[in-house]
Amino acid sequence: MKIGTFNLLKTEGYARRGEFCTAHGVVQTPVFQNVGTAGAIKGAVDAFDLKALGCQIELSNTYHLHVRPGDQIVRQMGGLHRFMRWDGPMLTDSGGFQVFSLATLRKIKEEGVTFHSHVDGRRIFMGPEESMRIQSNLGSDIAMAFDECIENPAPREYVKDSIDRTTRWLRRCKAELTRLNSLPDTVNPQQMLFGINQGGTYDDLRIEHMQAIAELDLPGYAIGGLAVGESTEVMYHILDVVLPHAPENKPRYLMGVGTPSNIIEGVARGVDFFDCVMPTRNARHGHLFTHNGILNIMNAKYQTDDRPIEEGCGCPTCQRFSRAYLRHLLKSGEMLSQRLLVMHNLWFYNHLMQEIRDALEQGTFAAFRAEYSEKMSKRI
Amino acid sequence: MKIGTFNLLKTEGYARRGEFCTAHGVVQTPVFQNVGTAGAIKGAVDAFDLKALGCQIELSNTYHLHVRPGDQIVRQMGGLHRFMRWDGPMLTDSGGFQVFSLATLRKIKEEGVTFHSHVDGRRIFMGPEESMRIQSNLGSDIAMAFDECIENPAPREYVKDSIDRTTRWLRRCKAELTRLNSLPDTVNPQQMLFGINQGGTYDDLRIEHMQAIAELDLPGYAIGGLAVGESTEVMYHILDVVLPHAPENKPRYLMGVGTPSNIIEGVARGVDFFDCVMPTRNARHGHLFTHNGILNIMNAKYQTDDRPIEEGCGCPTCQRFSRAYLRHLLKSGEMLSQRLLVMHNLWFYNHLMQEIRDALEQGTFAAFRAEYSEKMSKRI
Ligand SMILES: [Zn+2]
Ligand SMILES: [Zn+2]
Repeated sequence: MKIGTFNLLKTEGYARRGEFCTAHGVVQTPVFQNVGTAGAIKGAVDAFDLKALGCQIELSNTYHLHVRPGDQIVRQMGGLHRFMRWDGPMLTDSGGFQVFSLATLRKIKEEGVTFHSHVDGRRIFMGPEESMRIQSNLGSDIAMAFDECIENPAPREYVKDSIDRTTRWLRRCKAELTRLNSLPDTVNPQQMLFGINQGGTYDDLRIEHMQAIAELDLPGYAIGGLAVGESTEVMYHILDVVLPHAPENKPRYLMGVGTPSNIIEGVARGVDFFDCVMPTRNARHGHLFTHNGILNIMNAKYQTDDRPIEEGCGCPTCQRFSRAYLRHLLKSGEMLSQRLLVMHNLWFYNHLMQEIRDALEQGTFAAFRAEYSEKMSKRI
Repeated sequence: MKIGTFNLLKTEGYARRGEFCTAHGVVQTPVFQNVGTAGAIKGAVDAFDLKALGCQIELSNTYHLHVRPGDQIVRQMGGLHRFMRWDGPMLTDSGGFQVFSLATLRKIKEEGVTFHSHVDGRRIFMGPEESMRIQSNLGSDIAMAFDECIENPAPREYVKDSIDRTTRWLRRCKAELTRLNSLPDTVNPQQMLFGINQGGTYDDLRIEHMQAIAELDLPGYAIGGLAVGESTEVMYHILDVVLPHAPENKPRYLMGVGTPSNIIEGVARGVDFFDCVMPTRNARHGHLFTHNGILNIMNAKYQTDDRPIEEGCGCPTCQRFSRAYLRHLLKSGEMLSQRLLVMHNLWFYNHLMQEIRDALEQGTFAAFRAEYSEKMSKRI
């Protein structure tokens, strides 16, 4: 299969079962990407663990790796795949989200953004070309376009100007990545570019922007600027509105989303790619995903509970350790608790996607959604 | 082989190659015990990892487990072996060291010690019987005697009174553990008691105390109260003085020691068991053990070093990751750095013991000592 090909294998309503070809392997969709911010997964989980947890795509953060150790260092080490020893498909974000959320004193111009590093305060300039060069040095399989992440809510006028600039930036991203991929010493010359749809919560601007970026005929498209504080209903509404205007034969990626329920609802609306820090972040507080809802391992009732987090779970944690032991580790502040709890949550997310794919193949996704969409996100 | 049997397989000078039989397997000595304080190894390392790292004996801390989750809870979960899923030999300390170092407002009487928990401040009483009952609930293979850990230096008069009391306490430990082991519902009825030699830095008191506790014919004897601030020379001198008075056909355990050099020198003087937090604690700061000395992974020269920590090392970390990646993880504060660095250091210690055992079997320990004793503890 040619790199960049997206095969739609089956559909059920708007939901899609597909496969997407990258230089490091074929991805079965719908897929949940596992976040390894600085080339490592939070909770002492390494690239080999990720494989065992059923991860298909690793996602790293361009901004973090640019600041430390530096993308030139990563390039010198043979690219991020080799540096962190992950040989599967990999996506890098553009750095845009971090520039607009972490960095201080930022200034936006047509060329790009000037800001100060959150690590050492040094001045950094990043525009579409810089983002592409950094991602090219990292050598991911999918590079994300450099876009402006608009605050929500934002005035219509501002959003309109911003999406127009983001479209202009996208053309520059495409041109620069094409140039970089043609160089003789590029880390991953098969690197692809995904465009990002913005437009805040304005239906018409969302549609207008999606139509504009669709014209660039990129291998995939993301929906950005959601899950940033708006209600779930608004998020689903935007998906309902904008996805019919996304190219059907290209994967769609809903950035930074979400709960198991959000994922099931996203799939139902035609989303193919997801990513979220929720499995790792929730594990830190002992919030563990199960088919019956979210279990809080700190609860006193688990003190002498010899059962695994979830009966029947095939994750390395549930195969070996009891709720009682995990609760003890977390209460004692043992680092081991982080690893074991994160492994369960990542396994849960990766296998939830497998269950969704199975349901789509068997034409039972509607029943799956009806049974689990609400239940899985409840506290138990 | 009968539980509690110590077979001396070979000697070279004072150094001993032996094997010691416990209810959870035979231990090849000299051995380094891996410290899992509260039933977990620092650095997100679990009991299955320990097996992969070549660990023979896991060591847990009675005081920590008594305070949290409580030894009654551990007993209810089937004992510490089952709770943490470690099925090999296990030793628990008596809690004495923590009572005398961590706890505040302690009061020593003939019956035992009253002190306040370092977790919640509640008043706890611990004497020989309490320590044995807690360790019996944990169900380790080797229980350590409850002793007073004397400050160093201490007045001769005080040390003399203290070792006499520690001998009386040891008789009470033996009687209580015999009683506990005879109960029908004991977690590990094959649990053994090791006595602990004290006496500060007074040669004659050390010898007098060793002779007194040797009379109790216990399955093993430890040297306590060393590596608490005295010079290395003083520690080696005490070993030279006291070990000839320890029973020859019983294992000798040097508590809380030490650097690779300390271990080699301890073996040379007739020590069989060691334990130390150094491999885990040093890993936290990026100090990594190699045959050529201690490497500091934070050093700038490793920024683009693609080699493993030590060429030829068989540990999971060196098999997979580069110095450059490990340095990046540690500098970025990634939890994963702790796990990967701890795994290397524990592997190093466990395999150092294997090399020592091999050298003893081949009659080349003197040459091994001459080559490595100094070199391994140098900073490189
Ligand atoms: Zn699980
Ligand atoms: Zn190693």
